[in-house]
Amino acid sequence: MGFFGGLYEFKGYNEPVLVSSVDQVGTKTKIAAALGKYDTVGIDIVSHCVNDILTCGAEPLFFLDYIGMGKMVPEKVEAIVQGLARACRDVGCALIGGETGEMPGLYATPEDYDLVGFIIGVVEKDKILMGKTISLGDAVIGLPSNGLHTNGYSLARKIFGETKSVLNTGYPELGRTLGEALLEPHRCYLHQLKPLLSVIKGLAHITGGGLIDNVPRVLPKGLAAKFDSQTWSVPPIFKLIQQRGNVDQDEMYHVFNMGIGMAVICSTGNVDHLTKALPEARVIGEVVKQVGKARVVID
Amino acid sequence: MGFFGGLYEFKGYNEPVLVSSVDQVGTKTKIAAALGKYDTVGIDIVSHCVNDILTCGAEPLFFLDYIGMGKMVPEKVEAIVQGLARACRDVGCALIGGETGEMPGLYATPEDYDLVGFIIGVVEKDKILMGKTISLGDAVIGLPSNGLHTNGYSLARKIFGETKSVLNTGYPELGRTLGEALLEPHRCYLHQLKPLLSVIKGLAHITGGGLIDNVPRVLPKGLAAKFDSQTWSVPPIFKLIQQRGNVDQDEMYHVFNMGIGMAVICSTGNVDHLTKALPEARVIGEVVKQVGKARVVID
Repeated sequence: MGFFGGLYEFKGYNEPVLVSSVDQVGTKTKIAAALGKYDTVGIDIVSHCVNDILTCGAEPLFFLDYIGMGKMVPEKVEAIVQGLARACRDVGCALIGGETGEMPGLYATPEDYDLVGFIIGVVEKDKILMGKTISLGDAVIGLPSNGLHTNGYSLARKIFGETKSVLNTGYPELGRTLGEALLEPHRCYLHQLKPLLSVIKGLAHITGGGLIDNVPRVLPKGLAAKFDSQTWSVPPIFKLIQQRGNVDQDEMYHVFNMGIGMAVICSTGNVDHLTKALPEARVIGEVVKQVGKARVVID
Repeated sequence: MGFFGGLYEFKGYNEPVLVSSVDQVGTKTKIAAALGKYDTVGIDIVSHCVNDILTCGAEPLFFLDYIGMGKMVPEKVEAIVQGLARACRDVGCALIGGETGEMPGLYATPEDYDLVGFIIGVVEKDKILMGKTISLGDAVIGLPSNGLHTNGYSLARKIFGETKSVLNTGYPELGRTLGEALLEPHRCYLHQLKPLLSVIKGLAHITGGGLIDNVPRVLPKGLAAKFDSQTWSVPPIFKLIQQRGNVDQDEMYHVFNMGIGMAVICSTGNVDHLTKALPEARVIGEVVKQVGKARVVID
């Protein structure tokens, strides 16, 4: 366009509601920088944004990125944008704009950078997912995460540090190096969940705050979610973090997704349909009456 | 909403085209941090975004912000968001979401932060400003800036530094302190220009790159803009920067807006109408044939 704004012609909807979200990769960028790997953080931020608006039932229309750097290094920006572009293409979303800011003196080191994504999607008004129909006894189905996704990196960095030698250490239980496990891209659930939205009552994207903070966002007042932690296996990266950092269980569930990237709430009658369509999915909990303050109980 | 995405019901348009932009305040945040003043940067970022999409003829619908900090300080975030909210209200734009990221170790000092804005606006397809009708002999009208707006702060900081004592020094030619002059908020031109869009052929928001890089973005191929620098007075802050930093004239026009915040291109027949409606506006140049590589000539 060569213009000051990105343009998107908008048609073909009856009662469109625009759904937007802004997200960041956080200090996962510091791990990526330490390893000199810049092509996956773009996938992280696009997946994060797409999952966020998917929780409202929206499909992505377009995406804009912001990259902040202390010193502009064209090859780094190019690698980041290539990852962004590929991830946008995969979800049928137009990458229509972006801003790259060079800010000498703002960051701690010349390698540090920040990556922020902004997405606009759309949903027909009568198809908005609001969780309003969620009721006592509904099932909570979990979809597996790929690892930390984009949350908990400050704690992980505090425990392990972020030197190249630490990140390049292999761990048998991970079957790869720590850095590889930490950089695993954020999963996007759009393609799996889009055809199933009509039988889903609510979605919670499990980001910062884990199951504990994110699931209540979709629950009607007076309801809580009770999880049976035996129903899914916590990936080895989380066990390693917990053990090395001596982190208590509560904090782990509060900071990390613990292996669940998206929580899907549906009536018990639709559980078979959903788990057949989503072979990796497991029933991990149920909707219960809220007792006391806790809106999430993990047994 | 308490949800993962911000929702905006979209109606009342015939052939709507969404126009979006992402912008940042840059290292103006470092000046604001040094002075402990957090309530004006929000105005800067909203004005920057609104002006950007205005160049396509769009009016703002909604805005999302991103604040990155090394250490979360609620009072700072609150002051920033108050500025954002006030600026959004002033332009009739909904502040429907935002993200605040705490990233220990990413920034140079605990006071450093980054502020990014994302805006979505709309324009009817047949009202998009594209500059296509701009032709030889058209007039370029300048609207005054308030100062640096949001560009050139890295150079200004390099020249003056950013200590409190330097920023609190008063200068007779500024009629105030250096810090006050540098923090002057980015002007928003929406209210002035919106009623006049039908007689405007093109708009260039003068940001990073100054008149030299921004005006050509709106000019059709083969055309250039010739400015008469005697037609407007360069504000004292730019003279002070140039003199203290011994910056050559070319660089000044390339880095700073030099007192022109928005360039408005119209037919000569509409000049009277526009300058009557915009008392501060001056004819500062004209559209000429491009000779050689230069698309902007400043005499």
